[in-house]
Amino acid sequence: MTLPAESPTRDEAAAALKPRPSASYSITVRARLQQRPGSFARVAAAIGETGAILGAIDLVRVERGEVVRDVTVTCVDAEHGEAVAAAVGQIDGVAVENVSDRTFLMHLGGKIEVTSAVPLNNRDDLSMAYTPGVARVSAAIHDDVEKAWSLTIKGNTVAVVSDGSAVLGLGDVGPEAAMPVMEGKALLFKEFADVDAFPLCLRTREPDEIVAFVKAASPAFGAVNLEDISAPRCFEIEQRLRAELDIPVFHDDQHGTAIVLLAALTNALRIVGKQAPELKVVVVGAGAAGVACTKIMLAHGIQNVVVCDIGGSLYEGRPGLDPVREALARETNPDRERGSANELLAGADVLVGVSGPGAVSASAVRTMASDPIVFAMANPTPEVSVEAVERDVAIIATGRSDYPNQINNVLAFPGVFRGALDVRATTINEEMKLAAAQAIAAEVTEDQLHPEYIIPSVFNREVAPAVARTVAQAAESSGVARRPGGGS
Amino acid sequence: MTLPAESPTRDEAAAALKPRPSASYSITVRARLQQRPGSFARVAAAIGETGAILGAIDLVRVERGEVVRDVTVTCVDAEHGEAVAAAVGQIDGVAVENVSDRTFLMHLGGKIEVTSAVPLNNRDDLSMAYTPGVARVSAAIHDDVEKAWSLTIKGNTVAVVSDGSAVLGLGDVGPEAAMPVMEGKALLFKEFADVDAFPLCLRTREPDEIVAFVKAASPAFGAVNLEDISAPRCFEIEQRLRAELDIPVFHDDQHGTAIVLLAALTNALRIVGKQAPELKVVVVGAGAAGVACTKIMLAHGIQNVVVCDIGGSLYEGRPGLDPVREALARETNPDRERGSANELLAGADVLVGVSGPGAVSASAVRTMASDPIVFAMANPTPEVSVEAVERDVAIIATGRSDYPNQINNVLAFPGVFRGALDVRATTINEEMKLAAAQAIAAEVTEDQLHPEYIIPSVFNREVAPAVARTVAQAAESSGVARRPGGGS
Repeated sequence: MTLPAESPTRDEAAAALKPRPSASYSITVRARLQQRPGSFARVAAAIGETGAILGAIDLVRVERGEVVRDVTVTCVDAEHGEAVAAAVGQIDGVAVENVSDRTFLMHLGGKIEVTSAVPLNNRDDLSMAYTPGVARVSAAIHDDVEKAWSLTIKGNTVAVVSDGSAVLGLGDVGPEAAMPVMEGKALLFKEFADVDAFPLCLRTREPDEIVAFVKAASPAFGAVNLEDISAPRCFEIEQRLRAELDIPVFHDDQHGTAIVLLAALTNALRIVGKQAPELKVVVVGAGAAGVACTKIMLAHGIQNVVVCDIGGSLYEGRPGLDPVREALARETNPDRERGSANELLAGADVLVGVSGPGAVSASAVRTMASDPIVFAMANPTPEVSVEAVERDVAIIATGRSDYPNQINNVLAFPGVFRGALDVRATTINEEMKLAAAQAIAAEVTEDQLHPEYIIPSVFNREVAPAVARTVAQAAESSGVARRPGGGS
Repeated sequence: MTLPAESPTRDEAAAALKPRPSASYSITVRARLQQRPGSFARVAAAIGETGAILGAIDLVRVERGEVVRDVTVTCVDAEHGEAVAAAVGQIDGVAVENVSDRTFLMHLGGKIEVTSAVPLNNRDDLSMAYTPGVARVSAAIHDDVEKAWSLTIKGNTVAVVSDGSAVLGLGDVGPEAAMPVMEGKALLFKEFADVDAFPLCLRTREPDEIVAFVKAASPAFGAVNLEDISAPRCFEIEQRLRAELDIPVFHDDQHGTAIVLLAALTNALRIVGKQAPELKVVVVGAGAAGVACTKIMLAHGIQNVVVCDIGGSLYEGRPGLDPVREALARETNPDRERGSANELLAGADVLVGVSGPGAVSASAVRTMASDPIVFAMANPTPEVSVEAVERDVAIIATGRSDYPNQINNVLAFPGVFRGALDVRATTINEEMKLAAAQAIAAEVTEDQLHPEYIIPSVFNREVAPAVARTVAQAAESSGVARRPGGGS
């Protein structure tokens, strides 16, 4: 295959920039080296030449004139890891015993456990935690089912439910392959908000069956996190469950993303000095996240939002829209603009990309209004290359951890559910979502605020408690708290 | 209401014996005492007079001539606890500040947690456990779904599924009230066999819906423990799930009980010197446990088993039997005996009670053959009072922890599931159940064997690993192990 002999465009040049090594592609190479001066230096040099980053170096054992070391190396991707191992193995006097992928090692056996919260050291403990003592606790709940909130795990436990139909950038991978993601989610729930979450990945795609499943499962849980269910089924499933259950049901791909987007947008507007009512926002992508981001921006007071899918802008009367998008078309695009995402960006203040790699062009971004704000949230490859537009925009944010301004749901969902559980909320409503966004935004103080710091770090431990407090208060003031004061 | 003026029978006298205090009814009384000599002695004496047992005595604080102490007291039942608190409160110079029920305190917030099995200390950990690294793990499982066994929690995780329709002696209490029992079960799974179990208590009673639920949930789990589902629905649900799933489905009320019964019976027969083929066994109760106990005894080579329900013995051709009991009638009662449980006990060698309080009379037990063996497993009140018959039988076993020979499922299920998971078994078959029973029996050595010690203590930590090894081997030799050698 020959490439066209044109000079590369600025976009192409940017895309050709080498991606950065990431811990998610790190490997550990077990190498056996002859014990002589300079032998490890040659290994380090060989690794450096591949562009990989040398990490921990552990001594495994010393034997008969040889040293065995575990060398951890951060790479760009799996192929790069293989190249690193090959480069080390080709050094004279060095043999590679084993190469292990740290990400896969971390997943061996799964990432979560179900552990005891009470002691079980003797017969007395057993007689209280299990038979015969447990019978009195069961009887008390049978007499008053509300006691399940305090006497079982319900009050602190969230079901993370997926059918594996829209997992990360992978798409429809099925329930087993969705499990590592849902386990990761459970891990984050515990780590950031001490919420116990359990993943349920379902072998069914039927909305009726998913709704019946979650309803049947609901007695054990204080809330339900729907996750990675493809549109438009996710809308129907969430809507029906919200109507039929008395515990919160929250599709994180929609609302978690929307909350964090609104938090980041709030801070971005502080920097560029624009107000919500005067903005024109173009949302690229009309899937779960696109719909929810649009709705929360409307709720926040933004009046001109134009949503685009692969067929161009949504407008009232556009043929072939399903009910969800039809309703969205009526609420948005007040000027009934038509055209592609690239065309509609002309003069827009904000781009919200919740689509896929390369969904908009860098040249279209350059037609935006002054001080453009770009959220290019497709993962791992954004809608437009950061390198291609970073000099042309006021602020850019992505879904990636290796660029500034990472729009990551983990800033929202742990605190949102913590707050809802604390007051035993019956639902998570608009007031609670807007409150969560403002709590996240407020974690970036005036003196910290910067075009490259519009959103707190995912490792800022203050965020989840702050979100929880605000969400609990919003639940109380909007009348959906079963236990007012529980969040304080 | 006047009672008949007859002299009490031996049974009635035995039933009138005061039940013993149990930790499952222990309370902590917070008492404020004037700080003077002998004040606590009066508290201790008052507690002793109620028949309760004094436990831990903790100093809470000393203030202005007063001492506040937490006094833990073991009682017979809740009323007894109230009497103890009242007795303490009536002492001059003593005030009761608070009385807490230790069993309820232990249940506050539930008994299990979902915790992280991997570190999550920094951005690198996050990038491996969650995005972007997790995507490679998901993709690997999508390419080869068998990898879910090693790269997710599936390989170590059991679903504990109940509809709350037949919980302990309480009966149909519903899914919320079943949760404390299922959480207790999860606790025991972790404690005895390092199995991660999660309770799912379902708001449905429809076998079709329960079957659909478990099938949909199955991707996350390596096995399913059905629990406290009433007969006859439990038979159909288990049978259908066993046919339709490629992971073990095990109704513990049936098979766990049956395994431990057979273990105890094996050792009881060693003591009395009788052989399986020559026995006559009467099973009282044709519910989930009765059916399974009967089947495992037949599989073990016992030829004359007569099963009785409330209408008397099951026999081939008895009108009104459902398909499960009809099949059982054909396999049992070779002499087509008819009559009540009490009548049929005449000349029987073994009574297996899996029914309810007082289901057989002490006088009927006295008509059994020489060296009678009695399993009176109804909980908490056995089919016949232990005190009433203990001098008339060779061996008696119950479901209670406060008598010798406790038949407790916890001796079986942790090891059975551990063994099945270790070899990734596709099912738990008869060979595995029989092997489990023999492993439990073998934990009582020849020199330990005694009429009051036919079954190991539930706190014998050797039992579960021994059962697991034996079950894994039986899975391999019977061809249902996906991963032969995994259990060694």
